[in-house]
Amino acid sequence: MFNLQNSIPEEIRQKIREGKLKSPTAGMANGFLQANLVILPKDMAFDFLLFCQRNPKSCPLIDVTEAGSFTPVQAAPTADLRSDIPLYNVYRDGKLTETLSDITELWTNDMVAFLIGCSFTFEEALVRNGISMRHNDEGVNVPMYKTSIPTVKAGIFEGPTVVSMRPIAEQDIVRAVQVTSRFPTVHGAPLHIGHPATIGITDLDKPDYGDRVTIKEGEVPVFWACGVTPQAISAHVKPPFMITHAPGHMFITDIPTETVGVM
Amino acid sequence: MFNLQNSIPEEIRQKIREGKLKSPTAGMANGFLQANLVILPKDMAFDFLLFCQRNPKSCPLIDVTEAGSFTPVQAAPTADLRSDIPLYNVYRDGKLTETLSDITELWTNDMVAFLIGCSFTFEEALVRNGISMRHNDEGVNVPMYKTSIPTVKAGIFEGPTVVSMRPIAEQDIVRAVQVTSRFPTVHGAPLHIGHPATIGITDLDKPDYGDRVTIKEGEVPVFWACGVTPQAISAHVKPPFMITHAPGHMFITDIPTETVGVM
Repeated sequence: MFNLQNSIPEEIRQKIREGKLKSPTAGMANGFLQANLVILPKDMAFDFLLFCQRNPKSCPLIDVTEAGSFTPVQAAPTADLRSDIPLYNVYRDGKLTETLSDITELWTNDMVAFLIGCSFTFEEALVRNGISMRHNDEGVNVPMYKTSIPTVKAGIFEGPTVVSMRPIAEQDIVRAVQVTSRFPTVHGAPLHIGHPATIGITDLDKPDYGDRVTIKEGEVPVFWACGVTPQAISAHVKPPFMITHAPGHMFITDIPTETVGVM
Repeated sequence: MFNLQNSIPEEIRQKIREGKLKSPTAGMANGFLQANLVILPKDMAFDFLLFCQRNPKSCPLIDVTEAGSFTPVQAAPTADLRSDIPLYNVYRDGKLTETLSDITELWTNDMVAFLIGCSFTFEEALVRNGISMRHNDEGVNVPMYKTSIPTVKAGIFEGPTVVSMRPIAEQDIVRAVQVTSRFPTVHGAPLHIGHPATIGITDLDKPDYGDRVTIKEGEVPVFWACGVTPQAISAHVKPPFMITHAPGHMFITDIPTETVGVM
């Protein structure tokens, strides 16, 4: 059987490209960065690149292609961004219109692709430090919330920051901050610790995306900036045309996680 | 007398704007980030923003304005980038044509300004760690060299990486790496330690920019990516129009250095 956990990224991408692998990518190619995808027409690309530059915690850029290129030269030079993700979402005027396993037919020469860091990577680092992920233990998606923390506007792009939440035992909070601070390209340190109301979250049991998880006695909710932010922003801005990955179906890069750790 | 070392950035910028202060900014407003300036027309801005994103060690972005705006909203919201730098260089077709203390008359609505981190900041951190800067001790400019390390191409922008060199005592090298690694927004960790020939430098006594410095017995040349890279690239690419700061005459931001330190 094909061992996805220890396979190298190129092999997994090849299987995805051939249509033999259509599942979410969590747990695949351990030790390599996975990324969110956003594809926009060139005339919106400067504004979106500026938006990412101004909002590095929610939109940490891993790679950006030049207009017309579907090859992420820095992140995975043998990849094809039109076919190497298991599932894509196509949005027109801010509305999801199609979900496809290949977007080669939609690709045009004025498109720019953005790869944005994904929290799978820092979760792996937390787990290696003995801090388990409740949503994994409960077999659900991580809970995500729109907050009252505004993103920094750039051109047409503006709107709320989305955060993901993980319950962390009080005695592990310092270590969780240290571990995730090492990885600024996958959202980095938490945005907030402990008081959901302060950042505009009224009910932890009702996430805006993903699923609720249990918070046990002695645990504190810790919030990280989330790569779903661009999708929430787009729902707000309604760009005429945009393609993203489908949630959980990420792009697997050739970049070893440890090479992007700072100190 | 006006104490420049301990003045707040806004006061210094005000004096520069009024034409009362025209000197290089080294040593002013200790504890605040200083920045390199690059101004380009909007039609080259996406390529240059992409260039910075792909070359974060030589071109770490501190702030980018939207087309037509001369206000660096993140770095210094009360500043005016047309007048708050002591001296500007104007380039046409890659050639330096004017050196001006104010560029208000040249500013148009399609210009985008980029602020890029400056090594003054990490030098301050090294000195605080007991590692003195030879070029300061000898009262000259830091030596800078074009290298054989290529930058990552983005659109029209490509060319060699420029590095600055500081002699570091053998026993201080580890600490120098640690201290500068904390500050990725001002070039971060060294690009190379010890062997100039490996990165295409044939004679340390003949820098391409700045001045030669003495390397003493027991010291090793250590090389950091340098903010002069965009100017070297531009000499190579020859954009029709570009404005930069004049060397040493930097933009002083409101950003406290410690707030951009990682871990």
